[in-house]
Amino acid sequence: MEEPVGSILETINTPADLRQLKQEDLITLCDELRQFIIDEVSNNPGHLGASLGVVELTVALHYAYNTPYDQLIWDVGHQAYGHKILTGRRTQFHTNRKYNGLSGFPKPSESEYDAFGVGHASTSISAALGMAQAASVKKEKNRKVVAVIGDGSMTGGMAFEGLNNAGFNNSDVLIVLNDNQMAIDPNVGGVSNYLLNISKSKSYNKLKNEIWEVLGKLNGFGPKARRLVQKMEGALKSYLLKESNLFESLGIRYFGPVDGHDVEYLSNVLRDLRDIPGPKLLHVITKKGKGFKLAEMNQTVYHAPGKFNKETGEIIGCECDLNKPPKFQNVFGNTLVELAENNPKIVGVTPAMPTGCSLNIMMEKMPDRAFDVGIAEPHAVTFSAGMAIQGLIPFCNIYSSFMQRAYDQIIHDVAIQKLNVVFCLDRGGLVGADGATHHGVFDLTYMRSIPNMTVSAPMDEIELRNLMYTAQQDNMGPFSIRYPRGCGCKVDWKQPFELVEIGKGRLLTEGEDLAVLTIGTTGVNASRAVKSLNNKDFSVAHYDMRFVKPLDEELLHQIFQKYTRVITVEDGVIQGGFGSTVLEFMNDHHYQAQLVRLGVPDQFIEHGTPEELQHDCGFDQKGIYQACIDLLEQ
Amino acid sequence: MEEPVGSILETINTPADLRQLKQEDLITLCDELRQFIIDEVSNNPGHLGASLGVVELTVALHYAYNTPYDQLIWDVGHQAYGHKILTGRRTQFHTNRKYNGLSGFPKPSESEYDAFGVGHASTSISAALGMAQAASVKKEKNRKVVAVIGDGSMTGGMAFEGLNNAGFNNSDVLIVLNDNQMAIDPNVGGVSNYLLNISKSKSYNKLKNEIWEVLGKLNGFGPKARRLVQKMEGALKSYLLKESNLFESLGIRYFGPVDGHDVEYLSNVLRDLRDIPGPKLLHVITKKGKGFKLAEMNQTVYHAPGKFNKETGEIIGCECDLNKPPKFQNVFGNTLVELAENNPKIVGVTPAMPTGCSLNIMMEKMPDRAFDVGIAEPHAVTFSAGMAIQGLIPFCNIYSSFMQRAYDQIIHDVAIQKLNVVFCLDRGGLVGADGATHHGVFDLTYMRSIPNMTVSAPMDEIELRNLMYTAQQDNMGPFSIRYPRGCGCKVDWKQPFELVEIGKGRLLTEGEDLAVLTIGTTGVNASRAVKSLNNKDFSVAHYDMRFVKPLDEELLHQIFQKYTRVITVEDGVIQGGFGSTVLEFMNDHHYQAQLVRLGVPDQFIEHGTPEELQHDCGFDQKGIYQACIDLLEQ
Repeated sequence: MEEPVGSILETINTPADLRQLKQEDLITLCDELRQFIIDEVSNNPGHLGASLGVVELTVALHYAYNTPYDQLIWDVGHQAYGHKILTGRRTQFHTNRKYNGLSGFPKPSESEYDAFGVGHASTSISAALGMAQAASVKKEKNRKVVAVIGDGSMTGGMAFEGLNNAGFNNSDVLIVLNDNQMAIDPNVGGVSNYLLNISKSKSYNKLKNEIWEVLGKLNGFGPKARRLVQKMEGALKSYLLKESNLFESLGIRYFGPVDGHDVEYLSNVLRDLRDIPGPKLLHVITKKGKGFKLAEMNQTVYHAPGKFNKETGEIIGCECDLNKPPKFQNVFGNTLVELAENNPKIVGVTPAMPTGCSLNIMMEKMPDRAFDVGIAEPHAVTFSAGMAIQGLIPFCNIYSSFMQRAYDQIIHDVAIQKLNVVFCLDRGGLVGADGATHHGVFDLTYMRSIPNMTVSAPMDEIELRNLMYTAQQDNMGPFSIRYPRGCGCKVDWKQPFELVEIGKGRLLTEGEDLAVLTIGTTGVNASRAVKSLNNKDFSVAHYDMRFVKPLDEELLHQIFQKYTRVITVEDGVIQGGFGSTVLEFMNDHHYQAQLVRLGVPDQFIEHGTPEELQHDCGFDQKGIYQACIDLLEQ
Repeated sequence: MEEPVGSILETINTPADLRQLKQEDLITLCDELRQFIIDEVSNNPGHLGASLGVVELTVALHYAYNTPYDQLIWDVGHQAYGHKILTGRRTQFHTNRKYNGLSGFPKPSESEYDAFGVGHASTSISAALGMAQAASVKKEKNRKVVAVIGDGSMTGGMAFEGLNNAGFNNSDVLIVLNDNQMAIDPNVGGVSNYLLNISKSKSYNKLKNEIWEVLGKLNGFGPKARRLVQKMEGALKSYLLKESNLFESLGIRYFGPVDGHDVEYLSNVLRDLRDIPGPKLLHVITKKGKGFKLAEMNQTVYHAPGKFNKETGEIIGCECDLNKPPKFQNVFGNTLVELAENNPKIVGVTPAMPTGCSLNIMMEKMPDRAFDVGIAEPHAVTFSAGMAIQGLIPFCNIYSSFMQRAYDQIIHDVAIQKLNVVFCLDRGGLVGADGATHHGVFDLTYMRSIPNMTVSAPMDEIELRNLMYTAQQDNMGPFSIRYPRGCGCKVDWKQPFELVEIGKGRLLTEGEDLAVLTIGTTGVNASRAVKSLNNKDFSVAHYDMRFVKPLDEELLHQIFQKYTRVITVEDGVIQGGFGSTVLEFMNDHHYQAQLVRLGVPDQFIEHGTPEELQHDCGFDQKGIYQACIDLLEQ
């Protein structure tokens, strides 16, 4: 459904139209753009708060810069709704994040205004430097590159790697630091404190009070002293503005902080900055959720609130029905607290996702044992390793696709040393609306190639609890547990813990003609498919393998001795994944069977609902059903 | 061979012995330790320069801190030879980096004094924070944790992630910044400049000159002015020392810079710091190679010089014989320049390994098109992506095991966008003396699971050149080429370029009874084994597959139609690797054959020569030979 459009916004089909506006019209345009975002996102869920916070910045950037020739990179990109709406995608915006619709993130294949594909945090400075360097190699002297990065993304190490190079290479880039003191949750760390300190001008003011006041008094000593005072003021001011600044110390000119909601001032500043060569940073203070009161007041909730009433702000259809199965993340969050209450060795770690992974439950109840380390996956893993080598048992919860950031740390700092770190990979498998950048489809492959690693995936919430219970036993070594986004299937999930034998699968349904082997929650689709088949007089067995590594070799021997038709199902890439592991077993033990591997094929999968995407990949209930029929009929 | 030992060093079996010494004896101990390192490393090659640079720091740390209860983490760890020698491993030190000998890096399984296993850069701060946090959770209030990190490692993003958390968590850690302005090559980036700036006190002195001088003049205005001046001096001093410092701005107390070669002063400073709670950083200025003139003067060469004459410094057995096959890295380095001279789109990128990967050749000849970005693999990849999206063709050279650091960036920034980045993975396979942390054995698995990625490995230098030539054609998309450490097998490697058809393998030896399929330089072992076999009247075929992805399906159809016995060989993990790919093909096309996969088994492989390690893993010439015999005789 398309929403009504303000009269100025209606005329903006590209930023070229925007640049025709008088500067005083920008305020109205911002109001209209903000309202349009609220209208759309209230109805078609997406990322609200971040986009509302940068309405003025978005308008000012396209007003001051010559996009798309000048290149604009949005770090993470979920704040880029305004950008999408202003760059020719307003009328399609109601398809945002839907199957075959607009992507929730900037994407060059979607628009020439999306200069670089984004999704994960902290990439924009590196990409901008590369693009600026390319402009330099290609002698495109008047092309400008701008990276817009939040203070949350700034805690990511690769942002710092970019900063470290920006000053050194003297690249012609503008970094706009969008400082709202938030990631999805409140931002943490030294940089965050530092930025707050600048914004509130604490240290600056303190020094001013202590010194300028003194200087003022000195004026009383006559003209000679006054001249000295002037000289000193000049030196101090230059020092304060330059040498004392975190960014200036890295060789990057610092400007700001400026009010990110004064669109006229912002566009003037940006126009000036466009003509200043070399690496520079503009520190912009914004408010997440700006202009929508409830979003301003509850920034984490309204980061991506789902559907809401655009008048009252009331969120529609939130998870609070106790008669429905819970989200997996909440099973994780609650179970961890339950376990930690009985095991003093347990600690929890999240890189900036306390709400997203529900570690916030432990952070509230046990603040000394649960740590949000900011957007910093490599650090999160090695920090966990440091705790583990001292005898603690960290549960390090990182979304599957973000765990790719810490692959080396998993190998180098945890696995080689056989440390008891429990990797909880939330958002494993096809995640849905966030699309290609966020699908957690590589983890089974990249985890199972690592020696010493236990690789598991629960089929349901009860299994998740039991795997977590098992993983926190002593001397388990590196242990990964992956589970999907969203809700499970069990209402009565809170059962007494049971120890799972490591590397043991289970038979769920007996059958004679074919065996379906599943890992993780694909078992739910499979069990339904198997039930339908067996209701139609087929005889199909279903095994939930639970572990990709170690494999249940005993069970597999039974299976391959009995069946010549086997199907494996995984919510992940089939190259090198679970099915491939089973294949390796089959080959190494000289079994011959027709084995069909269902999972994600060798291509990047776009956005849509998980059901739509699983259907496309052929491992939804229907796909599994059909694969069984096909194999049985061969 | 054990070297003669100085009379004080001889008495030091543990740091407890060291702590019995009078402080004035430390200077002599340092001299003896330095000489011992020179004696040993001249004879048994290893990392010289870094260890010589921290002799005084090593002695002072163990003198001032209560190791091993206090925990000492050496970032990277190749500077820890002195530490190993002082912690009970002097008499074994002649086995350093040898098969079954001491590891070249600190390793907890080797000594309780090695608090955390290291090898890759920039992990120490995160690990130290984890250990300090564990001490806090466990209420071990008097346990201290020290991380020693070089200025090179400080450019790695995860070091920054650690710093960002150190100040925030108020952890009780000491970070010793060992500042020698070098990684293996000279260090680059804003931080490096900043540290040099502090060390040379440029900005500090400038401010002092401008202001203190003025203040001095003010004293002439009488006692009231003098009091004002005193007040102002206090404020300024406090400001200069605190607020203006990069580390202080992150909430970490900064001390220094201090002379890293004054052992008495250093041990006093460290003793004082031990009693100061909270996060703190001591900035120590050292000289890489200190005390060995040639090493001081040629720091990159003497980073790890191989055998050398300890009197003259002359390096023994360097690669300069034109009648011997070259190192693969030099084939890369020279070929890249050759290609770049004809293709203006080509640029080169290395994260701090210009000498190690031979990009230094291009950096000298084409300084505007070859970039050393510092130890920053994630940035290196996304920076390359930024250049590629603008139409350039970056050759991004990263050692295979370090590429693990950039796994997410490969997927998220390059592969999803199908960008023409050529990943050159030097040090692919078992690297030898550097051991478990450095073996590049996961890349075939982690690369081949990524959609859009071409995964190749040349068998020899000529193939490397041709693959590089092929990869720089237009519209190739993401392209990875992996090759090993050390020398190849071709003296006449510089042949005219030939285009390689993507996804095409080649038949090297015909045979009837069994086919050996190799990828990369394992083809050399295999071709020798096959030759021996065929000389003994076996009939074994040998195929060099060249590509793990896309697979040469046409060739594989021929192979599986002809052979029922197939052996795959790869210098990488067999879980999910090349052999597994062939197995997937075989299964998907319903071929039945006995397939044996040779490669690195599911365990971490320690150090030794590549030949020793390949032998242990069973894919040296002898292993391949035997595997063929076993399969033929089945």
